[in-house]
Amino acid sequence: MPTPATSAAPIILTGDRPTGPLHLGHYVGSLRNRVTYQRDYRQFIMLADAQALTDNMDDPAKVQRNVIEVALDYLATGIDPAQSTILIQSQIPELAELTFYYLNLVTVARLERNPTVKEEIRLRGFERDIPAGFLTYPASQAADITAFKAVLVPVGEDQVPMIEQTNEIVRRFNRIAGAEVLVEAKALVPEIGRLPGIDGKAKMSKSLGNTINLSASADEVRAAVKKVYTDPLHLRVADPGHIEGNIAFAYLDAFDPEKEALAEMKAHYQRGGLADSIVKARLELCLQEFLTPIRARRAELEKDRGHVMQILKEGTARAREVAARTADEVKRAMGLSYF
Amino acid sequence: MPTPATSAAPIILTGDRPTGPLHLGHYVGSLRNRVTYQRDYRQFIMLADAQALTDNMDDPAKVQRNVIEVALDYLATGIDPAQSTILIQSQIPELAELTFYYLNLVTVARLERNPTVKEEIRLRGFERDIPAGFLTYPASQAADITAFKAVLVPVGEDQVPMIEQTNEIVRRFNRIAGAEVLVEAKALVPEIGRLPGIDGKAKMSKSLGNTINLSASADEVRAAVKKVYTDPLHLRVADPGHIEGNIAFAYLDAFDPEKEALAEMKAHYQRGGLADSIVKARLELCLQEFLTPIRARRAELEKDRGHVMQILKEGTARAREVAARTADEVKRAMGLSYF
Repeated sequence: MPTPATSAAPIILTGDRPTGPLHLGHYVGSLRNRVTYQRDYRQFIMLADAQALTDNMDDPAKVQRNVIEVALDYLATGIDPAQSTILIQSQIPELAELTFYYLNLVTVARLERNPTVKEEIRLRGFERDIPAGFLTYPASQAADITAFKAVLVPVGEDQVPMIEQTNEIVRRFNRIAGAEVLVEAKALVPEIGRLPGIDGKAKMSKSLGNTINLSASADEVRAAVKKVYTDPLHLRVADPGHIEGNIAFAYLDAFDPEKEALAEMKAHYQRGGLADSIVKARLELCLQEFLTPIRARRAELEKDRGHVMQILKEGTARAREVAARTADEVKRAMGLSYF
Repeated sequence: MPTPATSAAPIILTGDRPTGPLHLGHYVGSLRNRVTYQRDYRQFIMLADAQALTDNMDDPAKVQRNVIEVALDYLATGIDPAQSTILIQSQIPELAELTFYYLNLVTVARLERNPTVKEEIRLRGFERDIPAGFLTYPASQAADITAFKAVLVPVGEDQVPMIEQTNEIVRRFNRIAGAEVLVEAKALVPEIGRLPGIDGKAKMSKSLGNTINLSASADEVRAAVKKVYTDPLHLRVADPGHIEGNIAFAYLDAFDPEKEALAEMKAHYQRGGLADSIVKARLELCLQEFLTPIRARRAELEKDRGHVMQILKEGTARAREVAARTADEVKRAMGLSYF
């Protein structure tokens, strides 16, 4: 059986900042795609613990703790370590090394103009007191992408400028080196956008407290579904209801496998006469059916955390070989090789 | 015989950016002291090739070429690889790794306030187009100093704020770690200041073109001494001459071993009746006597560059062990250890 993890297939880099458990939003926005990608691409999945520290330096233990939790989420949702290479960023010093050199290839003014960085600085309220590591993280991201010579990077629309910044660094480096040492990457923006939060906000996000975690218990799922935002104008069962902005239906679109029955249910809701409680009962059923096997696999994996760590160790070692080769090429191209 | 290179003596870190040959200014300002330090301290001497790239990214070959040239200058002037550890910065990835983490411990505003960085930005005319690696180089310097747990760093007065910045990072890290993982360093400002340039400018500097290199030939020394700035008011031999600001005497102070005769010569010059040509003849003699054995040792060493590279390789390996241990401690303290 061909294993893309070591094949010559195009390389794709994905990953997460391990700052908390993954949720349904991660599943719809990325995990689901990764399970597909790993069949067609050589996929590297990075647990970006070092990057997570850029704004969690006051609680590094949280980051470390979540590395294995996120890995469990990966494995439970179908990431296959024989097909994907899961790696821990901090255990590959060559990524920091590449970052160090790329910092010479980008100006402070350019980093400050980066729309993604600008927005994140605003969101976090940093203003002028940004940690330098936060301002410079596009260089670190360029290191991650180029270290593995990834040609595809799945990102949200808002992260596209980061990929452009990486490619600027790639072009500048190759020009100086006088050779195509580094490879440009393409942003792969998934067609289906973000899953909204249970409160109706545009984004499901841990910091907004509006998530359903992949590791949620059956009771937690039930409680969350009760709180799911529907149509505030749908006051009586007989009233016509709205689908647009109705989170229950947004989730059903993502998780109800019976599309025909769902279409009928939507029509009924819009005509009037269908209670929210019925919609939510269907939603809960779908979510429980989706999450139960994930929860079971997770419980199985949790019994042997040593095995999970072994998977991470092997993936990281495999990834490090690739990154070390790139770092060596980069240093040689700059003439920084002596012995 | 005790060899400080591996002893438990206090640790001192010095070094140079290998962007050109070392000159008499380096000798008086630092090399001379290092020959003394290596007897009392465990001395690490860093060839800062990676740092030199921060503003030489358009000509990396120059940096690489000068690494061995500067090493030859070191060995020719009495740095003993059995007592000092000479290392090449770029060959120790752990230095980049520490830099990466320290970037989280310093704000952009703080870096911009650093007086040394401010001045260097002004000198180089960078304004807002500073390479990010240039703005962040205090973090890199902190990495260099702390990696070797140096407690002493010989620097010029203008570099003292850099050491203060390092110590801020040290304190911030230790506070987060809840342990004294990193060690604060003290700036060691040499009593004898800078050697002026042959043109009378305050600083001997390659970029000002007013140097006498340690590797200068006898003819080059002769030609340079002819150009040495003396007293522009000393028009006729019979006139009284000035010592203050007279570069010939500044150099004689540094390189004439016969202090009594020098004092007499100064008095004669001040009274009048002593020609500049006599003073310069004495200066040339002193410089040739100082530089001839250095030139001879350099020529000897140049015959076997492989041996010099071997010295650098061994020093770098020894230094890397120390830096890797520190990087490991730093990562462990942040909880970034898994396997």
